Amino acid sequence: MRIAQVAPLAEAVPPGLYGGTERVVSWLTEELVKQGHQVTLFASGDSETAANLLPSVARGLRLAGIHDHTASTLVMLDQVHRRANEFDIIHFHVDLLQFPLFQDLFQKCVTTLHGRPDLPDFHPIYRAFPNMPLVSISDNQRGPMPPSLNWMATIDHGLPANLYRFNQKGGSYLAFLGRIAPEKRPDRAIEIAKRVGIPLKIAAKVDNADQEYFEHVIEPLLDDPLVEFIGEIGDHEKNEFLGNALALLFPIDWPEPFGLVMIEAMATGTPVIAWRKGSVPKVIDEGVTGFVVDSIEGAVRAVEQIGGLDRSAVRRQFEARFTSFQMASKYLAVYKELVAGSKRRALIKSAPVAISMPTVDDHPLQPLQVNGL
Amino acid sequence: MRIAQVAPLAEAVPPGLYGGTERVVSWLTEELVKQGHQVTLFASGDSETAANLLPSVARGLRLAGIHDHTASTLVMLDQVHRRANEFDIIHFHVDLLQFPLFQDLFQKCVTTLHGRPDLPDFHPIYRAFPNMPLVSISDNQRGPMPPSLNWMATIDHGLPANLYRFNQKGGSYLAFLGRIAPEKRPDRAIEIAKRVGIPLKIAAKVDNADQEYFEHVIEPLLDDPLVEFIGEIGDHEKNEFLGNALALLFPIDWPEPFGLVMIEAMATGTPVIAWRKGSVPKVIDEGVTGFVVDSIEGAVRAVEQIGGLDRSAVRRQFEARFTSFQMASKYLAVYKELVAGSKRRALIKSAPVAISMPTVDDHPLQPLQVNGL
Repeated sequence: MRIAQVAPLAEAVPPGLYGGTERVVSWLTEELVKQGHQVTLFASGDSETAANLLPSVARGLRLAGIHDHTASTLVMLDQVHRRANEFDIIHFHVDLLQFPLFQDLFQKCVTTLHGRPDLPDFHPIYRAFPNMPLVSISDNQRGPMPPSLNWMATIDHGLPANLYRFNQKGGSYLAFLGRIAPEKRPDRAIEIAKRVGIPLKIAAKVDNADQEYFEHVIEPLLDDPLVEFIGEIGDHEKNEFLGNALALLFPIDWPEPFGLVMIEAMATGTPVIAWRKGSVPKVIDEGVTGFVVDSIEGAVRAVEQIGGLDRSAVRRQFEARFTSFQMASKYLAVYKELVAGSKRRALIKSAPVAISMPTVDDHPLQPLQVNGL
Repeated sequence: MRIAQVAPLAEAVPPGLYGGTERVVSWLTEELVKQGHQVTLFASGDSETAANLLPSVARGLRLAGIHDHTASTLVMLDQVHRRANEFDIIHFHVDLLQFPLFQDLFQKCVTTLHGRPDLPDFHPIYRAFPNMPLVSISDNQRGPMPPSLNWMATIDHGLPANLYRFNQKGGSYLAFLGRIAPEKRPDRAIEIAKRVGIPLKIAAKVDNADQEYFEHVIEPLLDDPLVEFIGEIGDHEKNEFLGNALALLFPIDWPEPFGLVMIEAMATGTPVIAWRKGSVPKVIDEGVTGFVVDSIEGAVRAVEQIGGLDRSAVRRQFEARFTSFQMASKYLAVYKELVAGSKRRALIKSAPVAISMPTVDDHPLQPLQVNGL
């Protein structure tokens, strides 16, 4: 199949440091190539891929010091559009800029929503183009979205089976990995560690936006012999950090769309203790790969039980659900459904695709947009 | 002529409080209607106009609490696109989202650039679509832009001749009107007032982003009997505030694209003392409507000479150059040039307008974008 993957331009694919979406695009792209598909990757020029790379900017925009990515992304989308007839499927990992330009090509397009769907700012575009095929990365992600969208599937993220080494032995500390931010609740992780008397290692970056939160809320809590703040770590250090842990703490307080770090921990055999928010209840197999909790007390009980989980079973469940092979297989099923035209016929039936310029009466202004704000 | 005006959705047209671009769009729209044209205004639903208003959101997005305007603006642009054949001219006042969608309609489109052209973030879209007809609001604004763009004209902003009453007498204080921000240099205004011993009145809002600058840099300077800080004022108070002044101080330290407040002062007969930045040297007629300076010393000398200027001449020059009638006449000349197709033929000659999907070789990826970042 001839497949275009359209990545965000913020980071290289894969990114040098952070960049969740770009990592997922990379894993999907490489797996599709491995399975014999003809893949074209639209991404920044410092990306590395076995696919055909078509860069529209020299390097990831964040490191290039570009704050507003709109113009560069639009230029990339126009380049994708000019080549649209070279592809059977165009898979977008950018949130919304592509909708108007590709509206007459929806039958070969699919957009994975990687971001937060609970912000009303973005809803008008989804309401205006309800036919665009969409993929959610958790069922929970669809909740706040407008009704009657063209959801094709929920597809979990997946990572290469051999990216992390399985660690049968595990370790004796609790791990917190990610960003220091109010919605990630590192304060809860610290409280849990103190309550159970088990060391906590925090490997996290502090964004400029969260500097004040770090200094005022978290830093005072770090002055405890049980708590070790390591700072930001790279991909190569994650294997050790996660694999040597007793459990990963994921005490989030926001509707996490997926939560890659949970499946990274599982890949090393380390189980996860996480709050019941967003994707969490679907990602964790209760009592197998970890525990879903609602309170500090619940988390404390979970830590006390965590030694009873079989780390081999955690790894097996990761392999069964969260590899890039699994992810690519599910996306291929969506691609095939689109190509086969089953969705296409349904689309044409419910709302004709406009080939020529429509008249005014065919397309009155949508009162929905007016009332919705 | 059937003309579409496409406004930003941040504020109503005209805005209740601030919103420079939306005010200019309003003045242009009403003047075009007055001159007998069939004008359609795409703007927020709380706009007020004699034109045919087609709202895509109920009210201005800023007051509706929407921070990211991209989705709503794209939906509006799609609605404009669906009705494109109803218009002879489509005039965009949004910066760049329209470029890919309207590329096959460039011969009836024109975009006025209202923002800062010196930010590299936006340049890729202008480089990628060099045929889009553009209007600058000062010649200086073009300086940092990529070369070989399709500039149609520089058109000064203009406001209704009767919006402000001419004040023959003037007053005895110096006026500063706008935002408290480092690039507006209210500190310079205060220093000038102290040096010449003339009272200064500051009517300005303080955005959240500038709160720290206000508290640390400006507030300590306000403790002087010569300096009066009035805070934010509405449109109806501006007439008194500007008309009763000896001069407007405009001591900016950034490439101001136009600077509406200068012509507002002139409309009341009050001359302007401004720094040589951005549009300033072209907006001020030296020795007639004010003085262009490069230093505090220059500004002090200008204040000493300002009594020698004829306030009637200031008003006459405003009427000759900066009314909405002037502005609309210049835009109509651009519209007519586009409609007559003189530009269109030139465009077609230099770069064929793509009707069908172009092949790869017709549109290679632009190395410019790669190298430019």
